[in-house]
Amino acid sequence: MAENFTLIIGNKNLSSWSLRPWVLMTHFEIPFTEKMIRLDQPDSRATIKDVSPSGLVPCLIHEDTYIWDSLAIAEYLAELYPDKHLWPRGQKARALARCLAAEMHSGFSSLRGTWPMDFVKEGKGLWGGPGVRKDITRIVTLWEDALERHGASLGGPFLFGRFSIADAMYAPVVSRFRTYGPLRVSEPIANYLEAMWTLPAMQEWGEGAKKEADAGWYRG
Amino acid sequence: MAENFTLIIGNKNLSSWSLRPWVLMTHFEIPFTEKMIRLDQPDSRATIKDVSPSGLVPCLIHEDTYIWDSLAIAEYLAELYPDKHLWPRGQKARALARCLAAEMHSGFSSLRGTWPMDFVKEGKGLWGGPGVRKDITRIVTLWEDALERHGASLGGPFLFGRFSIADAMYAPVVSRFRTYGPLRVSEPIANYLEAMWTLPAMQEWGEGAKKEADAGWYRG
Repeated sequence: MAENFTLIIGNKNLSSWSLRPWVLMTHFEIPFTEKMIRLDQPDSRATIKDVSPSGLVPCLIHEDTYIWDSLAIAEYLAELYPDKHLWPRGQKARALARCLAAEMHSGFSSLRGTWPMDFVKEGKGLWGGPGVRKDITRIVTLWEDALERHGASLGGPFLFGRFSIADAMYAPVVSRFRTYGPLRVSEPIANYLEAMWTLPAMQEWGEGAKKEADAGWYRG
Repeated sequence: MAENFTLIIGNKNLSSWSLRPWVLMTHFEIPFTEKMIRLDQPDSRATIKDVSPSGLVPCLIHEDTYIWDSLAIAEYLAELYPDKHLWPRGQKARALARCLAAEMHSGFSSLRGTWPMDFVKEGKGLWGGPGVRKDITRIVTLWEDALERHGASLGGPFLFGRFSIADAMYAPVVSRFRTYGPLRVSEPIANYLEAMWTLPAMQEWGEGAKKEADAGWYRG
């Protein structure tokens, strides 16, 4: 199926929400036209509004349909491409994967607020209070549980064996753990972080992010 | 299909997240055992933890599977009961419905923080700053758009014609608009609020909430 998708994203060094559908579509070889909007410009907000009626990125445009939320985009693509198995195959695994994706979608505000994604600059150091530590502990617990219950038995290295929407939702966290770290983590988590970081789609995003960072595309 | 579902919820006068799957399952006549945990007790947190490993409500237990997020519960049930059409039938309508559900799931923090759900006590008055007003404006815009593009053509009265997950996700907002109001809204929105409020499942929740409120089940 050759669909005509346009994915509107913010620039790659900064836009954590945009990373999710981008890495998902790239990994699963779902072709799309990328339309990137710099978030560091005075008129960024107006520019986004011109192409994404909600004023939000990411936004997937498919024919006359605008889908402006990363999780809704993921579900839409999972429906359109059932054979690609964007969610894990087993019903129970899928239920858990959706819990992980949803918890990321609505939560971890301390981590997100204290450690904004900056995909390129490593060694930013571990800082933050109890809220950040609590979020990290919870995320690691969720990952360990998924890896143990599903990922490992399915041959890994991702949360549910093969790369899935759940991994895509946590891609920005993987970036944060790397660039604000290094965190001391268990071996399964270290392996998971490595598998995510070396995923070709993540590397490709990183190359784009590096060019932008070199050009000084930062806010404020 | 007679499944053995247990739905763990917080008490009905206060737990906005619990309302969502409860009203969804009740409306669609998906039988479940309700396990309600009072949120106003010193040991509420420990009690929840005993039955819901994540420490969160709502949590749907199905056999050995725990699903602790309202949106993940909704997707799980939509998969299990395809013939009930918990999401709207059309693919584009479904995409928009998922955007609305997702935006509610992750957003509107000013509204949620400033106007905690208290299902029973009306006339709490409209208060709050620009954040609350912005959230209300956005929600009303989303509703009007859905009602106009899909709800009306499908015969209404809900966002996408028949009651769906999108409506269930906004059920606590409907309660807030009523009990912190009255808000001045357009006729389509007034009709929608009325349809939601008089939905038998909402009324049934309200009866439970009233008993709890009469018994003084409030925090702090």
